[in-house]
Amino acid sequence: MVGSLAALNFARKGYEVDLYEYRQDIRTAELVQGRSINLALSQRGRKALAEVGLEDEVLSTAIPMRGRMLHDVKGNTSIVLYDPCTKQCLYSVGRKHLNEVLLNAGEKFPNIHHHFEHKLSSVNFNEGSMRFKRPFQEDAEAKADLIVGCDGAFSAVRQQMIKKYGFNFSQEYIEHGYLELCIPAKNNEFQMPANYLHIWPRDTFMMIALPNQDKSFTVTLSMPFKVFADIKTPKDLLEFFIKYYIDALPLLGEEKLIKDFFKSKPQYLLSIKCNPYHFESKAVLLGDAAHAMVPYYGQGMNAGMEDCSLLFSIISQTEITLDKALLQFTESRWRDAHAICDLAMYNYVEMRDLTKRVTFKCRKFLDTTLFRFFPTIWVPLYNSVSFTSMPYNKCIANRKWQDKILRNIFYTILSGALVTATALYVTNL
Amino acid sequence: MVGSLAALNFARKGYEVDLYEYRQDIRTAELVQGRSINLALSQRGRKALAEVGLEDEVLSTAIPMRGRMLHDVKGNTSIVLYDPCTKQCLYSVGRKHLNEVLLNAGEKFPNIHHHFEHKLSSVNFNEGSMRFKRPFQEDAEAKADLIVGCDGAFSAVRQQMIKKYGFNFSQEYIEHGYLELCIPAKNNEFQMPANYLHIWPRDTFMMIALPNQDKSFTVTLSMPFKVFADIKTPKDLLEFFIKYYIDALPLLGEEKLIKDFFKSKPQYLLSIKCNPYHFESKAVLLGDAAHAMVPYYGQGMNAGMEDCSLLFSIISQTEITLDKALLQFTESRWRDAHAICDLAMYNYVEMRDLTKRVTFKCRKFLDTTLFRFFPTIWVPLYNSVSFTSMPYNKCIANRKWQDKILRNIFYTILSGALVTATALYVTNL
Repeated sequence: MVGSLAALNFARKGYEVDLYEYRQDIRTAELVQGRSINLALSQRGRKALAEVGLEDEVLSTAIPMRGRMLHDVKGNTSIVLYDPCTKQCLYSVGRKHLNEVLLNAGEKFPNIHHHFEHKLSSVNFNEGSMRFKRPFQEDAEAKADLIVGCDGAFSAVRQQMIKKYGFNFSQEYIEHGYLELCIPAKNNEFQMPANYLHIWPRDTFMMIALPNQDKSFTVTLSMPFKVFADIKTPKDLLEFFIKYYIDALPLLGEEKLIKDFFKSKPQYLLSIKCNPYHFESKAVLLGDAAHAMVPYYGQGMNAGMEDCSLLFSIISQTEITLDKALLQFTESRWRDAHAICDLAMYNYVEMRDLTKRVTFKCRKFLDTTLFRFFPTIWVPLYNSVSFTSMPYNKCIANRKWQDKILRNIFYTILSGALVTATALYVTNL
Repeated sequence: MVGSLAALNFARKGYEVDLYEYRQDIRTAELVQGRSINLALSQRGRKALAEVGLEDEVLSTAIPMRGRMLHDVKGNTSIVLYDPCTKQCLYSVGRKHLNEVLLNAGEKFPNIHHHFEHKLSSVNFNEGSMRFKRPFQEDAEAKADLIVGCDGAFSAVRQQMIKKYGFNFSQEYIEHGYLELCIPAKNNEFQMPANYLHIWPRDTFMMIALPNQDKSFTVTLSMPFKVFADIKTPKDLLEFFIKYYIDALPLLGEEKLIKDFFKSKPQYLLSIKCNPYHFESKAVLLGDAAHAMVPYYGQGMNAGMEDCSLLFSIISQTEITLDKALLQFTESRWRDAHAICDLAMYNYVEMRDLTKRVTFKCRKFLDTTLFRFFPTIWVPLYNSVSFTSMPYNKCIANRKWQDKILRNIFYTILSGALVTATALYVTNL
């Protein structure tokens, strides 16, 4: 997606763009009902899509999610709206649909050339040369003035950058894996309220569900690998769901759940940070290749799209050379990218654990109340991340400032109460 | 070095060992006077060498360093002994000499087979196969039950591990580079006292010197790349040395300094952490390949050699399978390896900056005094790292406990003083 979006941006500026994709054309691939992975599109992604004139087309088929619907262990639900004040929401969009929109838009440009089933096997930045493996065909070779690596968390372009002096890099796997399940449509209707991101927080693990266009929900079960490993038989699985996800069980369907659960293995999740994102004027990394993150802030795609917004706003400056533009991109971006990787890791804890706690609910209430009265001053962290284009690092700084204010208010009230109590006590003496 | 040491350990257990080295045989390479990079050997390295019967041979030609000799900006010196109580010291050993001792020892084993000028180009863990590039010859291929990657900070074996799910990894470059200079012998004598590690701390940069067998000193200049870049001409260089290293200038010799400085570029320094160190029963990383660190604690080589001690103490357990032994190695080692990487980074600050401060000197005095009275209880951090085999992570925990005690003593004395002062004041009223 980020590759297609970057291609559109370059093409609009008049560059010749060759777009290489390792998989086949997603538009001709078969769609399995309920397995269409969906993504939460928010402000940053919308802005980047708007810049290439595609926001409306993408939103026209997206499903708005107005808040979190929390499911407790007994099956009771409660709602926490994302934005009770200005009513902003996330949009559940199908990965396939989004890709289709971007690829179709690219085909309208004569200067974008698509190459599917080309897997990058080696790259030489100084020569600008690349080699691709193709199924049942000879290797392909290509040359470029600039190589843009939008090739995901396991980026082959980045693999080459790691060998360069001064390239800082980390990859960190979390001890939790994820597995996708499906709540199918029933009588052509959603089986749960559609306009929410459904969460079943269970302390050390959790389950979430996002609505699809076909009225199914894609369900993601996240838990430690060892918990997955302990579920060995259909009996184990049903007992586990009866204990933790009683309300979801009839919606998933016992037979379908057993089939879906045992047919695939839990997948790994990792966080990737690096710095710089570029090599001289020869190569640059965007999206997951630059900053893969765990999926719990719903910002992976949005951050990748925002990379495009930033990069092209820099390149559009008059008289900037490419090497300076790429350096400026790295310097403007790395702190924010690291910040959202950290926030995503933190939100994993919040989603599965904190959402249940009273202190979290109190804070949410305070945040919402202050946001209502001071909508331009008091933007809660989740809202600044999801519904503004405030740099991620600024969002965190903002939150720290809010924490400080609240702490001060708390102590002021506490000491006020103590003084009053003492005064009353003395008066009564 | 770690590779040769590991080979000796395996050979002593009766395994067939093939030792592949990318460079030529160091024993036949030419030695340039004063360019023999030297290393600080301490307890952990000595223990590992003793286990293969080589400690005495290595120490026989090593130069003991009893403490730090600090050179201030005016050229005045002061001494901080490493261990005024039990007189332990570091040993400056030549890298070449140490390699020679290890390789010669290896040649006595018919089950160690040396292969020089073999550069690993690809590796397949599941098949246990490797491919090596050789100068002016066809590629070589080899198979092994276990591949032991002792191939340094830019390890080709690790490059393959990075692609495995669950492999956590980070590489972090520091903003300082280093460049080696030489203080040659004069009239076949050392130009400075030989039995010290000489340090010129200058806040944001520093210079150190270690003695060589040939009575020269290898001098390492560490500073930010941008400071290096600002020294463009011989005039700049001499002005810089007159300002910061006035006493070293005549020892280095102006002409030789200019030649040495401008003939090479400053080198990068990086810190590498990973976890796990093994892949099933097929491969394991040791030394810099597993945990490269900045050189400021003098523990890089010692930690690598200690890897061998630990690995072979685990493998020597009766009835342990190789996969379990490697898993146990990872689990026993990673926290300590991460800890020494962090300590090395911290010591970089201490060496160039803190050694000059009064608070640092006070702490050093307190530590030394307490160590003198309670030599088994109060072992200062530097001493536990350099002169014991206490796990690195334990050394840090120990230091935190000492910090806490000292803080409590400080506050007790402070409050005692306040109480006494108040009492005296009241008495005088």
